[in-house]
Amino acid sequence: MTSEHVRETLSALEGGALSLQEAETRVLDLLRRAPFEDLGFARVDHHRSIRQGCPEVVFGAGKTPAQTAAIAERIVANGDTLIVTRTGPDAFDAVRELVPDAEFHAAARIITRTTGKEPTGRGTVLIVAAGTSDLPVAEEARVAAEALGNRVDTVYDAGVAGLHRLLAEHERLAAARVVIAVAGMEGALPSVVRGLVGAPVIAVPTSIGYGASFGGLTALLGMLNGCTTGVAVVNIDNGLGAATMASLINHLT
Amino acid sequence: MTSEHVRETLSALEGGALSLQEAETRVLDLLRRAPFEDLGFARVDHHRSIRQGCPEVVFGAGKTPAQTAAIAERIVANGDTLIVTRTGPDAFDAVRELVPDAEFHAAARIITRTTGKEPTGRGTVLIVAAGTSDLPVAEEARVAAEALGNRVDTVYDAGVAGLHRLLAEHERLAAARVVIAVAGMEGALPSVVRGLVGAPVIAVPTSIGYGASFGGLTALLGMLNGCTTGVAVVNIDNGLGAATMASLINHLT
Amino acid sequence: MTSEHVRETLSALEGGALSLQEAETRVLDLLRRAPFEDLGFARVDHHRSIRQGCPEVVFGAGKTPAQTAAIAERIVANGDTLIVTRTGPDAFDAVRELVPDAEFHAAARIITRTTGKEPTGRGTVLIVAAGTSDLPVAEEARVAAEALGNRVDTVYDAGVAGLHRLLAEHERLAAARVVIAVAGMEGALPSVVRGLVGAPVIAVPTSIGYGASFGGLTALLGMLNGCTTGVAVVNIDNGLGAATMASLINHLT
Amino acid sequence: MTSEHVRETLSALEGGALSLQEAETRVLDLLRRAPFEDLGFARVDHHRSIRQGCPEVVFGAGKTPAQTAAIAERIVANGDTLIVTRTGPDAFDAVRELVPDAEFHAAARIITRTTGKEPTGRGTVLIVAAGTSDLPVAEEARVAAEALGNRVDTVYDAGVAGLHRLLAEHERLAAARVVIAVAGMEGALPSVVRGLVGAPVIAVPTSIGYGASFGGLTALLGMLNGCTTGVAVVNIDNGLGAATMASLINHLT
Amino acid sequence: MTSEHVRETLSALEGGALSLQEAETRVLDLLRRAPFEDLGFARVDHHRSIRQGCPEVVFGAGKTPAQTAAIAERIVANGDTLIVTRTGPDAFDAVRELVPDAEFHAAARIITRTTGKEPTGRGTVLIVAAGTSDLPVAEEARVAAEALGNRVDTVYDAGVAGLHRLLAEHERLAAARVVIAVAGMEGALPSVVRGLVGAPVIAVPTSIGYGASFGGLTALLGMLNGCTTGVAVVNIDNGLGAATMASLINHLT
Amino acid sequence: MTSEHVRETLSALEGGALSLQEAETRVLDLLRRAPFEDLGFARVDHHRSIRQGCPEVVFGAGKTPAQTAAIAERIVANGDTLIVTRTGPDAFDAVRELVPDAEFHAAARIITRTTGKEPTGRGTVLIVAAGTSDLPVAEEARVAAEALGNRVDTVYDAGVAGLHRLLAEHERLAAARVVIAVAGMEGALPSVVRGLVGAPVIAVPTSIGYGASFGGLTALLGMLNGCTTGVAVVNIDNGLGAATMASLINHLT
Amino acid sequence: MTSEHVRETLSALEGGALSLQEAETRVLDLLRRAPFEDLGFARVDHHRSIRQGCPEVVFGAGKTPAQTAAIAERIVANGDTLIVTRTGPDAFDAVRELVPDAEFHAAARIITRTTGKEPTGRGTVLIVAAGTSDLPVAEEARVAAEALGNRVDTVYDAGVAGLHRLLAEHERLAAARVVIAVAGMEGALPSVVRGLVGAPVIAVPTSIGYGASFGGLTALLGMLNGCTTGVAVVNIDNGLGAATMASLINHLT
Amino acid sequence: MTSEHVRETLSALEGGALSLQEAETRVLDLLRRAPFEDLGFARVDHHRSIRQGCPEVVFGAGKTPAQTAAIAERIVANGDTLIVTRTGPDAFDAVRELVPDAEFHAAARIITRTTGKEPTGRGTVLIVAAGTSDLPVAEEARVAAEALGNRVDTVYDAGVAGLHRLLAEHERLAAARVVIAVAGMEGALPSVVRGLVGAPVIAVPTSIGYGASFGGLTALLGMLNGCTTGVAVVNIDNGLGAATMASLINHLT
Repeated sequence: MTSEHVRETLSALEGGALSLQEAETRVLDLLRRAPFEDLGFARVDHHRSIRQGCPEVVFGAGKTPAQTAAIAERIVANGDTLIVTRTGPDAFDAVRELVPDAEFHAAARIITRTTGKEPTGRGTVLIVAAGTSDLPVAEEARVAAEALGNRVDTVYDAGVAGLHRLLAEHERLAAARVVIAVAGMEGALPSVVRGLVGAPVIAVPTSIGYGASFGGLTALLGMLNGCTTGVAVVNIDNGLGAATMASLINHLT
Repeated sequence: MTSEHVRETLSALEGGALSLQEAETRVLDLLRRAPFEDLGFARVDHHRSIRQGCPEVVFGAGKTPAQTAAIAERIVANGDTLIVTRTGPDAFDAVRELVPDAEFHAAARIITRTTGKEPTGRGTVLIVAAGTSDLPVAEEARVAAEALGNRVDTVYDAGVAGLHRLLAEHERLAAARVVIAVAGMEGALPSVVRGLVGAPVIAVPTSIGYGASFGGLTALLGMLNGCTTGVAVVNIDNGLGAATMASLINHLT
Repeated sequence: MTSEHVRETLSALEGGALSLQEAETRVLDLLRRAPFEDLGFARVDHHRSIRQGCPEVVFGAGKTPAQTAAIAERIVANGDTLIVTRTGPDAFDAVRELVPDAEFHAAARIITRTTGKEPTGRGTVLIVAAGTSDLPVAEEARVAAEALGNRVDTVYDAGVAGLHRLLAEHERLAAARVVIAVAGMEGALPSVVRGLVGAPVIAVPTSIGYGASFGGLTALLGMLNGCTTGVAVVNIDNGLGAATMASLINHLT
Repeated sequence: MTSEHVRETLSALEGGALSLQEAETRVLDLLRRAPFEDLGFARVDHHRSIRQGCPEVVFGAGKTPAQTAAIAERIVANGDTLIVTRTGPDAFDAVRELVPDAEFHAAARIITRTTGKEPTGRGTVLIVAAGTSDLPVAEEARVAAEALGNRVDTVYDAGVAGLHRLLAEHERLAAARVVIAVAGMEGALPSVVRGLVGAPVIAVPTSIGYGASFGGLTALLGMLNGCTTGVAVVNIDNGLGAATMASLINHLT
Repeated sequence: MTSEHVRETLSALEGGALSLQEAETRVLDLLRRAPFEDLGFARVDHHRSIRQGCPEVVFGAGKTPAQTAAIAERIVANGDTLIVTRTGPDAFDAVRELVPDAEFHAAARIITRTTGKEPTGRGTVLIVAAGTSDLPVAEEARVAAEALGNRVDTVYDAGVAGLHRLLAEHERLAAARVVIAVAGMEGALPSVVRGLVGAPVIAVPTSIGYGASFGGLTALLGMLNGCTTGVAVVNIDNGLGAATMASLINHLT
Repeated sequence: MTSEHVRETLSALEGGALSLQEAETRVLDLLRRAPFEDLGFARVDHHRSIRQGCPEVVFGAGKTPAQTAAIAERIVANGDTLIVTRTGPDAFDAVRELVPDAEFHAAARIITRTTGKEPTGRGTVLIVAAGTSDLPVAEEARVAAEALGNRVDTVYDAGVAGLHRLLAEHERLAAARVVIAVAGMEGALPSVVRGLVGAPVIAVPTSIGYGASFGGLTALLGMLNGCTTGVAVVNIDNGLGAATMASLINHLT
Repeated sequence: MTSEHVRETLSALEGGALSLQEAETRVLDLLRRAPFEDLGFARVDHHRSIRQGCPEVVFGAGKTPAQTAAIAERIVANGDTLIVTRTGPDAFDAVRELVPDAEFHAAARIITRTTGKEPTGRGTVLIVAAGTSDLPVAEEARVAAEALGNRVDTVYDAGVAGLHRLLAEHERLAAARVVIAVAGMEGALPSVVRGLVGAPVIAVPTSIGYGASFGGLTALLGMLNGCTTGVAVVNIDNGLGAATMASLINHLT
Repeated sequence: MTSEHVRETLSALEGGALSLQEAETRVLDLLRRAPFEDLGFARVDHHRSIRQGCPEVVFGAGKTPAQTAAIAERIVANGDTLIVTRTGPDAFDAVRELVPDAEFHAAARIITRTTGKEPTGRGTVLIVAAGTSDLPVAEEARVAAEALGNRVDTVYDAGVAGLHRLLAEHERLAAARVVIAVAGMEGALPSVVRGLVGAPVIAVPTSIGYGASFGGLTALLGMLNGCTTGVAVVNIDNGLGAATMASLINHLT
């Protein structure tokens, strides 16, 4: 609509229907309020996708199935990739009514409908997870990263007690362009992984643990204090955040 | 500069030097970047003063005397009220070289140069402080509130141990349009004050105390959990923040 | 009852039934205990309403439906506005038996019965909320602010991811006399909102979030540390507290 | 030395000086202890530089000038880039005796001696800092990123109070391949910056602030809870960690 | 059993059945291990009751009804006062089977069987509670204090919002030998109460509240930092602990 | 002054100079503001001493020597006991100018001037301290308790490592009417002491310790969670608070 | 497989099928990746058992019964001792299908299948627990310690309130080679126990308590700050960790 | 003195000077107070050394040089090993006056005077430290362990960044009977070390680090949450505590 207003104003000026003074007033008024004011909901998303390098992701927790479905429908109608995180089977049933070809990833608690295109990221995002209890977070990262257009490889159950399994995968480690390391407890995994690879590592603390793990706080603090550089950290259990960061890096040309 | 660009573009369109298409492209480009791009430093301040209802305040901590003086000089040159908080005598010496009529308020650790106009706030801002140790924070609030154009009254040393002194001042309490309550320790003062007045109360926890006062955290938490409504809280030791909030409220018409 | 005692004592003195000495003893005794002693429950409420500028609000959590209903009945019988927060359908059923025209606001978890008068606040209280998950708190603020006699406007779902929607509402922002900004996560919304308006902003952190949001602590700390002045904060999820503070400010003449 | 042992063993086997059994025993013994055992100090560094994508950085805090100088000398003798962080003039004096062409960056508290080659990173690392008090951390990031082979651009003093200055630099923002956002207080800057660019953002909380900023904890928590994806966080005041992460990303091909 | 051993040994010595040397050895051996070793369970309790001034109290949480009943039976068989805290109806049913005249105090969650004697404390223990939500803790204190032999008076619902009700009870306040003040939220009640009475005040923070009350931590910290002396604090929700402390003080002669 | 006003009013009424109506108005006005309004500073202190059972104590920290001396002078002029805590030699020099017979207790950091009367407490206050590092706090308690009119006994250096020394003092333990137990580290002393005596125990955590003692927090939490009843706790390092509480208890008749 | 590769390579070199150069390349390649790469899952476990002195323990929490059973089957098939902690009856039913002679210890929440051999530890591990609520943790330690090949003795319900019972067991205390002390609340037990024995003490804080026990944090901090040396601490509720540490010590020769 | 009392009493009974009744009373009285009462200071120390397996250690912090010297003199006079920790050159000067052959270990901040005997521990205590900044704590552990009669080996500067150095020392690791692992930052070292050895590991978190290391809290939490069993933890910076624990274990026969 902004461009129409502009065109209209300029045409009127050109055609003499507006004085220079009047046209200037109108344009300056638009300037004061742009670029946000006249954008509708759908156009915003396109703009953000271009500006920020990734589509809008719907945070499912705290939304009703109906709300989730309505938002999902609008996103798909816009031709965008659909990603709903922290969601469940009820929301999926509602979404499927409006978006029949949506998929539900139970372990990851994510609904997606992708545009089916080939991965657009340049390399592989490798997800390393410490224990089986960390899988929901690791899977959130995996499904999200794939939906964002990345080839993803996974090395699960590779914590300190299973370090040899990680080391046994040195070729897959070496092949990664970005690594996501997911761990609870004391959160030492990202430091160890980063010590083995040349790629940047995104660390995801999980709330797995008990006693003095304090719901992931210990893992978070441990990851922030790791003495190996080349690691950056996202919020506790934030598989999506790690996937987005990794995807941005993997799409750098 | 933006308005010149606009006028220039429109004149060229009107005069035929630009096609409609070219003019539209130029204006849309301006729209994408406005309203920030063409504003110089000084104009911003004027804009903010109008938009936010209060002048820019310089946070002196961590700035060299020279930096402080340079910023002060520019603000005064713009005809604005000068307020520098968390500052000291060295910075004041430097400021005075460039702004000879600046004033230093030692207890408040503030440098001001006001425009000398009459108070513009509608009523009185009353500052109540619990103990003599809370005075630096209370004075920061007082000096700032006066510099922001408010009549200020103070009732100091009126904590729980001196509650009678507060109660003895019931007429000054009743006369306040807004109250700032400053206290450390357990932070009960704002609740008590609010129980006595009809005015909204801005609570300022101070870092005064020892042991389990944890640098003001106990006072902060106490103020947030007070069971009397009509109280809102600012950061520990943030006399300036309370003054600004109180001034905004006192200037409401 | 106090005034009767006084009158009685003075009459007896005047009439010679009491010696000066006896009368003095009696009055001094009253002085030691006043002004609280002779106030019954109902009179207190009227007094507080006058003294503090807002009616008593019933905190429903931890009260049985029967207790809630009994208190509600007494308040209404006094001709006061009824506001019960943190309550539910069971309590509402009990209240309706005694106060048939009470209303239940499900999203806000509030029962009200207002006196039906026109808003008495001078301007509009604008409530801005970051995400759909913050709505229960925002609605608590809205319903309470309306019950306290304010015109209320709302801009919901206007967090950082939807900043353009907030900016698109610049006219409603500009029209507000006081703003309540409700947000969880990192709590940046109040700073941003305050950067756009001339009105004072009451910030309400919510317990929305996960991981290192620590039940609203991160939002609370963020709001207290915001570098924009003109913001004051209430307790986590305390929609009512924000509404009361905003109402007090909005009723200032 | 390992390779010599291997060659020696194999030659002896080939020449008949060792039986197959003896050779096998020797090689298996090496396997049990490699790849660490036979590496001297200097060779490790080369290996790490290749394996991890960045040279060893000396953490100067807690080291005597003499210790710092001795380590610096060895690194330079190896032809490696020298980076000493959290250091000071005394250590620099000691280093200069052994490494005459070392440089001291006072604001960044870093000593460097680079190999003088052209930047090897593919794009530009942009460092955005909120306030002048955050400069030591921002400068640590800048000097380190340059020493690690990156072109660096900086936009300082661009916090919430000076958002327009950041927005005015949209071309430099758009030109960055990676962004480092440095801020104290409530830590909202990275979210805001990320909302404006397509590049990944590394967030560095600083210990700048007072009261409830708790030495950077509030900024850290705020950055971890930011609702904009595409941001990852390093430790409080860890300019070096951000620079290393950014450099790794910027060197991805 | 110890006394029997002693008597036996001494008799044997007196009767010549033991030499002085043998008797000395035996007595020294007892000395090394006394006074604990030879005491059975029941005798310990008597000893403690004399030594510590109060009977053993059974902490019911985490015990099965059967365990609780078995312990209760032994205590009653010893002629001691029975007090079981943090218990419920199921445990009471089990206890009643073995101790038919036991009583259950539902609001206090306490089972008692007292010896029916007159109160032995010298004065009255007054329990002041802030809100109706604090009643379970206040009732735990009341029932326990009565079972420990004290006359108890209560002033409930006397928080800051109902301060007048507390002040209206000045005669009951003045009559108390010890006061227990129970409050959640910001925990200001004990300071206020102590300001009104000459008696020592035991403060009990409760876990009542929300948001930044952090399960009673804010009330606890507030009570510890109160600027009125003559107040000491027990653990959050620890009505029993306050009752025991108050009872000890009230039994001082 | 209040009583004069009353007498005056009543006399005027009796003498016919005031009508009943006028007299009633005046008395009701006094009632509304009493008992606080017309009391001067000195009379307040007398009132509090009577009402709260202990004289005003001056908290020296954060006061200048001159301020301290001025307050001290007024208290002594009123015939009250002078107690200034958290003070030092400079303040003492200033006080001595105005109060020549004041005393300075260096280890306790207290200035006193007592009225020289015999102890008024009924029994002995026993102060038990864990280690030599806890002595400043223990001495603050001792000097304050003596100044408040108590006989005081001390058992110092009686922590867990020296438990035998405490046990060796069983007669002095048994003789105490109230015990103050002072300890840092894990704070186990009060529980142990309480297990040995029939008297109530006031626990004082100290900030002595290192590492995870967190400035006394661990000792505080340990004391609050002790499983022995009959213990109540004051703020970290609050020797004065413990002394006041103990004195109140010791003065109970 | 590594040894086969080595033998193969060396044979080929010896037999002339590989040149010295080729053989060297192959061996160096193995060196870079050993000693982990060629180990299969089963062999790892044997290796760890030898290297670390204890078998792998399965953490049952967060695993499905099927997952638990599958892992259990593999461990037993390897002839190893089976220990599954934090598990329940459902998992036991699944395990029993595959491992018929597995045992379930309900109070300890552990499944075991031991090799039935005699205890291999040199002495006795004594487990002391403070209260009946601490038994789940104490039992986890007991069952695990027995399964790890230790003779175990227990003294339960021996907290501060029952100290005499602990002291009555001085012979069993003296007989222990290692002691595990389990306690919640203020966590004083390990210090007290250590004061009575010559053996090292492993302290286990439990999450038992309420109010300011903060889920075991107070007990943990108390144990870390105990002033008796010869105590080391494991995570809250970590009975298994204490058992493993004690078993390691008890197996030292 | 106790034994004399006993002998005297028994003799009097035997000689008829005391009745059986009188003798019984006396002995029972002794029983109530033993075994502590008659122990003087010196005898206690000998007793503790035997009972607890290690001599008394003097905590130097907070003691004057004179106090330290006096205590040191008494210990040496008793023929005991002298260990003073957290001390400095001034205290050493004072100690040397009274104990001429005392030694000062500057890096460890310890004064010792050992009895010069051969190590009595059965094996070697190995101390592994992560960084050069951790050396004061590691040295406190080393000097204390040696003074307690242990052979000590050290592997310093073996943190994650220098893991190869640790691995290169596999023979010294294998030779240790107990390992002390000292680390700050994220505290991952003990887990890694324990993964490499069969010996129990005592973990010592240090306060080394910055930002979110929070004075060693992160290292402490990390060590408590490590997923490798066979590790127990002492307080932050508590080198002495680790040495005592290790020495106890190393002296087990």
